[in-house]
Amino acid sequence: MDNNHLNGLLRPKSVAVVGASATPGKIGYTVIDNLLKGKYEGKIYPINPTATDILGLKVYPDIGAVPGTVDAAIITVPAKLVLEVAEECGKKGVKGLIVITSGFSEVGRKDLEDDLVKTANKYGTRVLGPNIVGTLSNSDHFNGSFAPGLPLEGKASLISQSGALLIALDAATYTRKVGFDKLVSIGNMSDVDFADIIEFLEEDDGTYCISLYIEGLKDGRRFIESARKAKKPVIALKAGVSAHGAAAAASHTGSLAGAAKVYGSAFKQAGVIQAADLNDLFNRTLALSLQPGMQGDNLLILTNGGGVGVLATDAAEKYGLPLKFAPAELQTEMKKHMPEFGSSKNPVDLTGMAGTEWYYDSVHYALTDKWVDGLVVLYCETAMTNPMEIAGAIKRADVEVGNGKPLCVSFVGGEKSDAAIAWLVENGIPAFNAPDLAVNAIAALREYAKIHQDGGTPRFIPNEKARKASLEVIAKARAEGRNALTEIEAKQVFNAYGLPVTVTSLAKSEDEAVKLAKEIGYPVVMKIVSPEILHKSDAGGVKVNVKDEAAVRDAFQTIMKNAKAYNADANIHGIAVQEMAPWGTEVILGSTSDPTFGPTIMFGLGGIFVEVLKDVTFRVTPVSEEHAAEMLDEIRGAPIIRGARGEAPRDRKALTRTIVAYANMILDLRDEVAESDANPVLVYEEGKGLKVVDARIILTKK
Amino acid sequence: MDNNHLNGLLRPKSVAVVGASATPGKIGYTVIDNLLKGKYEGKIYPINPTATDILGLKVYPDIGAVPGTVDAAIITVPAKLVLEVAEECGKKGVKGLIVITSGFSEVGRKDLEDDLVKTANKYGTRVLGPNIVGTLSNSDHFNGSFAPGLPLEGKASLISQSGALLIALDAATYTRKVGFDKLVSIGNMSDVDFADIIEFLEEDDGTYCISLYIEGLKDGRRFIESARKAKKPVIALKAGVSAHGAAAAASHTGSLAGAAKVYGSAFKQAGVIQAADLNDLFNRTLALSLQPGMQGDNLLILTNGGGVGVLATDAAEKYGLPLKFAPAELQTEMKKHMPEFGSSKNPVDLTGMAGTEWYYDSVHYALTDKWVDGLVVLYCETAMTNPMEIAGAIKRADVEVGNGKPLCVSFVGGEKSDAAIAWLVENGIPAFNAPDLAVNAIAALREYAKIHQDGGTPRFIPNEKARKASLEVIAKARAEGRNALTEIEAKQVFNAYGLPVTVTSLAKSEDEAVKLAKEIGYPVVMKIVSPEILHKSDAGGVKVNVKDEAAVRDAFQTIMKNAKAYNADANIHGIAVQEMAPWGTEVILGSTSDPTFGPTIMFGLGGIFVEVLKDVTFRVTPVSEEHAAEMLDEIRGAPIIRGARGEAPRDRKALTRTIVAYANMILDLRDEVAESDANPVLVYEEGKGLKVVDARIILTKK
Repeated sequence: MDNNHLNGLLRPKSVAVVGASATPGKIGYTVIDNLLKGKYEGKIYPINPTATDILGLKVYPDIGAVPGTVDAAIITVPAKLVLEVAEECGKKGVKGLIVITSGFSEVGRKDLEDDLVKTANKYGTRVLGPNIVGTLSNSDHFNGSFAPGLPLEGKASLISQSGALLIALDAATYTRKVGFDKLVSIGNMSDVDFADIIEFLEEDDGTYCISLYIEGLKDGRRFIESARKAKKPVIALKAGVSAHGAAAAASHTGSLAGAAKVYGSAFKQAGVIQAADLNDLFNRTLALSLQPGMQGDNLLILTNGGGVGVLATDAAEKYGLPLKFAPAELQTEMKKHMPEFGSSKNPVDLTGMAGTEWYYDSVHYALTDKWVDGLVVLYCETAMTNPMEIAGAIKRADVEVGNGKPLCVSFVGGEKSDAAIAWLVENGIPAFNAPDLAVNAIAALREYAKIHQDGGTPRFIPNEKARKASLEVIAKARAEGRNALTEIEAKQVFNAYGLPVTVTSLAKSEDEAVKLAKEIGYPVVMKIVSPEILHKSDAGGVKVNVKDEAAVRDAFQTIMKNAKAYNADANIHGIAVQEMAPWGTEVILGSTSDPTFGPTIMFGLGGIFVEVLKDVTFRVTPVSEEHAAEMLDEIRGAPIIRGARGEAPRDRKALTRTIVAYANMILDLRDEVAESDANPVLVYEEGKGLKVVDARIILTKK
Repeated sequence: MDNNHLNGLLRPKSVAVVGASATPGKIGYTVIDNLLKGKYEGKIYPINPTATDILGLKVYPDIGAVPGTVDAAIITVPAKLVLEVAEECGKKGVKGLIVITSGFSEVGRKDLEDDLVKTANKYGTRVLGPNIVGTLSNSDHFNGSFAPGLPLEGKASLISQSGALLIALDAATYTRKVGFDKLVSIGNMSDVDFADIIEFLEEDDGTYCISLYIEGLKDGRRFIESARKAKKPVIALKAGVSAHGAAAAASHTGSLAGAAKVYGSAFKQAGVIQAADLNDLFNRTLALSLQPGMQGDNLLILTNGGGVGVLATDAAEKYGLPLKFAPAELQTEMKKHMPEFGSSKNPVDLTGMAGTEWYYDSVHYALTDKWVDGLVVLYCETAMTNPMEIAGAIKRADVEVGNGKPLCVSFVGGEKSDAAIAWLVENGIPAFNAPDLAVNAIAALREYAKIHQDGGTPRFIPNEKARKASLEVIAKARAEGRNALTEIEAKQVFNAYGLPVTVTSLAKSEDEAVKLAKEIGYPVVMKIVSPEILHKSDAGGVKVNVKDEAAVRDAFQTIMKNAKAYNADANIHGIAVQEMAPWGTEVILGSTSDPTFGPTIMFGLGGIFVEVLKDVTFRVTPVSEEHAAEMLDEIRGAPIIRGARGEAPRDRKALTRTIVAYANMILDLRDEVAESDANPVLVYEEGKGLKVVDARIILTKK
């Protein structure tokens, strides 16, 4: 299953069309026609048991009859015949099947799909699809699809999970002037999935930006891995982020769409830049395929109109690149290229009097200035200036400076401005018809650079000793027919993985409780331990601040009495005697097994933050310290951790370390732990650590 | 200053150009040229003391020499001559001056501007500008500006505070296919402002939608009033919403840009629909100028592609119109127009097989169905279908049903789709190149209908008695040279306006404190009252839960001692003895005098909500009960008021009534009160009201 096979699939030197037809309108005809119209230079072998000539090409009765080697087979025969074709292709040594045929998992026939993949993979053949439009490559003049033609030439490649959208976008590349080298329809992803093609495109000479339209991933973890490894920018539009939308996506593609929040976190971890909508995918793709990353936060905006300058300034804040005033030297220089009533701050307002040379001089200087990390040039069409000349001046200055700083442009106006925009794009400068779009585009370039500055690749460190100890605890619970651990058991697991839990021991008798309390140190907390009593407080099963021996004896008796009154049949393990943690900031850690991404960790603040505001954030495990630190900052209640309302900052280090350890634990125990939480975790001020006060683990069903 | 004068200004039957020039390139030439090229049918009088003929028109030496009446004078002479011209125009009976000339308040010469307005208004002449591009009207073939030409004809009118943007957008109307009847450059708003022109356009036959580009309003309250009265849709793009952007806007237009949050609230109160950016302003304007309001929340989406359907579904949630599944009868009917693997839910997916007739049938039925309040039709270009024919089918079905339900369309594809989009727009159906844009457009139509369903016009009720009592309290404080009221004084004012404050009385002696405590009923709260001690708790000046006479005496002595230790020079009025309100949900009410909108009320939850999350919302006073109720719902902590975490719902009625009363109070006292707050206000469960526990009033500077 190596890359060589994907090369044969997506850039074949020879292709068979199984189900080729001489009848116009049939897909088996359209595909051949498209291959010819696209001026494909490889061999084309139409396969049809009855025809002899299709569009002037010699037809073969079956793939075995083809004389030479066949890299890829485009399959258009009905679903019921596909398996047999796959077998023949395998025997022939075909590297990849492009299965246009539908009628598989998308209509409930996952069995057919599984058989297809099994058969193909047996011979080392890879399967793209089924249920796809096909795949297109400008570099190879290869239109192996029923989409009407190759897209406008360009430096990005698009993988689309919707075939209809791929066809429509194919046509739109010409009107929207966003070019692509490859378009890949990925369909049901029975075998080849996003991760495979990302890895392929990362090595592909014709691709500078990898664009994705995603409805639902199958193997989220592989996706994250392959995207994270990519040095090229990867940008994704995730459809189905609304509750109703996720339902629509699921019925449409047969794949499970994960929660929008988890996808958002996973994209961050994968270093995937997000697109907000279809036009945004095109706009950001254009910028990412034409310009380098923006290496710092200093964005300078040049404009000939105050209005568009203000709109761009608003957009800069909205897209995470808030403007700063330009430094004095830069302002002094800029003042030379504007009338007195212009502004040299930022946006630099050259005023409506700005002509071609002013633009040239200002762009030239701005790109040269060391403070400037990226430049957005705005132009409002005026009667006295020529948009095309201004565009030329911008390009000339950029070429002359040529120091690899990113540049995005907006021209607002009519036909002349639109023509200048098209010219700029053809000449490698992303240009848009509104100021916010140019700012959004450069923000994407900033995101791209940041991803590769951040580093922070998480490492998963299996912990044999902790795992062994945990499995023993878990085995005992399973042996008792339980799928939930008691608090004491859960804390044993947490403790094994190095999480700072409050010292908790099980007392089976009053005397034992007194002995344990003395060891732990007063005051202590006492809690009922029974698999049948989950809501311990409701059962009168909790006593806090137990201060001395007499109080321990009293608490023991009361809790036992209450527990029996609450549930006479409860199996009571005893009473947990526990260190009473001092008050701290309440946070929550938890984990779920996400259907797409597997073990996923959640972090949030306790109390109203989680209960009322749902103020939580996620990461797919494992988690690096950098990502853990991001989690602390991205919740709304982040100021609390930083020390709000006159309080000292909380112990961030302890918290990030705990998140990393927790993530490691649930990943190590992924086969056993379905859900877990540490709630509350009390976090103390800097240097004073934290304590997990209560713990819960729900086991996987076995 | 009646509407007749604005009619003369914006739709003149005769126009003088003061500063007319025979030299191409001069603004005084361009304006005449534009009037002629626009085929203006009224009289044109070039005014120039030396020329005799400009572009074939007879020139007059001064405006007094013009034989007939002159509705409007377009002024292009240098700033220093404008005052004299205004005087002459006034004497001539000119109704309005279109002052293109710059060099007024935008460069710090507000004095010149004030003189201009004073002079003009003396004769009843209105002033548009100065510092503008001019004003254009397709209905009148009137291009009274130096913008190159009249915009594409259409049903919206745009008022722009940026001249450069107006010129650029003028050209863009042709390429973006969004038509306008009038474009008005409003400049420095020395006299005629947004409110005036909104009132004018509300009566204007050629205008169906009023679009605004706003950098900063001068009189926010008048703006709210005129926009609220408008029955036509009013849509605004507010520039300068970021901190840095507001600074840029202020330097640019010379008007103060208010806080983005207050603008947002004011737009809501004014019934103004907001645009997110420049393209959004065009897109929403297109929808609002072509289609009726959407009278309910039931949005149906028709599509031929699952992908765009999912994207539209996401957009529906994003723009506040989350999809519901279509009712069974509607689904049954829809099933008739699609293959078996289509979906009839919502989005209704006709599948890629959908041709012209399926579209016709489905659109026809959907518009007829009584459940459907609005329809979005999506189309993904395919090889087998003809976009123009599909567009025709959509239009045909819409015309045949003709029941006034709004319809927006998205075609994703290449040239053919773009042509179909243009055709639809020309034929009155808003159409866009991406699914989210069509959904956003119909969401604007929903917002428009809601504004006119909501009603809720607030009434300001001056309260003579309360005002008199308050002014006495205030006068006393002012007489003592104070600009802040004490808690007791502030509560007297609050109480006069019917706000439920905790009973609080001033005790000057220990015995008096004992007597007051007995009257109020134990337990009580005791607090130091001194204008010099604002942070009462820090000074040890507060005792709560004072339970009996002995405790009162003890507290009195302790507080006095602490206060003297804290500030030996403090002027101590005595000690406030106060009813101890039972615990309730903490909320905060406050007010500020916004520079744009005047007295403005703030509401939020107490504690971390206000301190950490800044979770507050604003309304410009007066406030209706409906708007007060909206305030409760739009904070993030809204669930707390509704009764989160198993608690009973809080007393909403008491809270809305209190907000209305508070707003009324600060409006009635607007000349005296600069800032105020009620913090905390304790809100009890339904039917049990609330209590203002602490109060603060800061007086205006006099």
